[in-house]
Amino acid sequence: MPVLDASEVRDFLEEVWPGSTRAYVIEDIGEGTARLRLVHSPERLRPGGIVAGPALMALADCAVWVALLGVVGREAMTMTVSLNINFFRPGAPVDVIADVRLHRVGKRLATGDVLMYSEGDADPIAQATVTYAIPSR
Amino acid sequence: MPVLDASEVRDFLEEVWPGSTRAYVIEDIGEGTARLRLVHSPERLRPGGIVAGPALMALADCAVWVALLGVVGREAMTMTVSLNINFFRPGAPVDVIADVRLHRVGKRLATGDVLMYSEGDADPIAQATVTYAIPSR
Amino acid sequence: MPVLDASEVRDFLEEVWPGSTRAYVIEDIGEGTARLRLVHSPERLRPGGIVAGPALMALADCAVWVALLGVVGREAMTMTVSLNINFFRPGAPVDVIADVRLHRVGKRLATGDVLMYSEGDADPIAQATVTYAIPSR
Amino acid sequence: MPVLDASEVRDFLEEVWPGSTRAYVIEDIGEGTARLRLVHSPERLRPGGIVAGPALMALADCAVWVALLGVVGREAMTMTVSLNINFFRPGAPVDVIADVRLHRVGKRLATGDVLMYSEGDADPIAQATVTYAIPSR
Repeated sequence: MPVLDASEVRDFLEEVWPGSTRAYVIEDIGEGTARLRLVHSPERLRPGGIVAGPALMALADCAVWVALLGVVGREAMTMTVSLNINFFRPGAPVDVIADVRLHRVGKRLATGDVLMYSEGDADPIAQATVTYAIPSR
Repeated sequence: MPVLDASEVRDFLEEVWPGSTRAYVIEDIGEGTARLRLVHSPERLRPGGIVAGPALMALADCAVWVALLGVVGREAMTMTVSLNINFFRPGAPVDVIADVRLHRVGKRLATGDVLMYSEGDADPIAQATVTYAIPSR
Repeated sequence: MPVLDASEVRDFLEEVWPGSTRAYVIEDIGEGTARLRLVHSPERLRPGGIVAGPALMALADCAVWVALLGVVGREAMTMTVSLNINFFRPGAPVDVIADVRLHRVGKRLATGDVLMYSEGDADPIAQATVTYAIPSR
Repeated sequence: MPVLDASEVRDFLEEVWPGSTRAYVIEDIGEGTARLRLVHSPERLRPGGIVAGPALMALADCAVWVALLGVVGREAMTMTVSLNINFFRPGAPVDVIADVRLHRVGKRLATGDVLMYSEGDADPIAQATVTYAIPSR
């Protein structure tokens, strides 16, 4: 079972990164899983009216962090080691849903993958794999 | 529904790459999915008796190709554009199971992700994301 | 020789993405190369006072785009296909310099790598590889 | 200066992985750099007579390991954590040259990038970024 539930992770996120939970809504924390919603905002669109790539990169980075907090608890000092993202189709100007599965939570490294969807659409717009370093505990 | 089933992909693989299906057993082709088995062989181990990283890279590359053949049919001239792989834990000297999901099959590019497991173990040993270029049809 | 020089790319960037050149200063465009400066701003820091990972992801994405514009000219509709980034050390709260080399500019795909440095420091803080799709010309 | 030179790394490679130096010729070890030659062999070609992708993945993996051995010395138990590779153009049926630069050699993680060239050709056929975990020393 997760060490922190969605509302506890939300509180922690807001504490260490004030304002972040207006953009990133934590919808669910499960056993090594998480679901986030990136709230639509015109400032995250690029020319052409589609979701900007960097907004999805930031979402993936945050989403895996959130899933990891659910497992390791209130730990602000994890650091992203690597991120790999593939973009499949343009993202419509709506909320984006991010579904995370953690594949490894080791002593030092944790890795998860994220599928991102335009709300209401079954085909993912992007997929990312993110690895975090966990400080010595 | 897949254009080619597991046995048709197997025949095609053997045709364009003779001998390959001794190492790579196609267990299933579904709708945008595939399952392969990499048959254990001492020559794919590295010092320490664990599965060599390059053997898993080659498996991931082949597994996404096989899933793609299930969708696009007998097309030998697809080419790998990129591959990203993360290793989570040492692979025991047993068969490796690779589970593929295709996330995009476009006109030009197709991308899938692969989770790899030591047979009989629920925790993945590696995860890869592979993109292929599809020649003009 | 580049099709567009640094000042022409700057004008184009500002045209399609107003305000962007306050953060991203194009210092040089060479033959398949570019140098950008990400201007330091407190809003790009994360807890701990180091440069936020997503700020470097966005920089890498922009830097390869800029190098590509130098080669293909005023083309707004290129799209990021994939981005892979590795973080090596925390970035100090100063400007970040991004050095791009393009390795391929094909008909459909272009790929470059980017090394990112805290200004005045010789060891890179991050490295990224970014692939763009180029629309039919 | 490197801890091991090219001939010492060669001896170590042959010791822990007998036969490997027939395929992988270490041409140079510098300060955080290495150059390897993958000797041409028909068994590393794919249908169409071009160098198989997995042969280049294995080369990149080995090349970064070799560069790392030059820095950390005789350490067999490093493990690949992640590898990202992009393929730019088909590799001709000739030797492949791999040029490595290490960007980080930390206590726990080391990362390098590799450019691979068909011998005698100035345009790279592939680029890879590889991260190794280093056991506690």
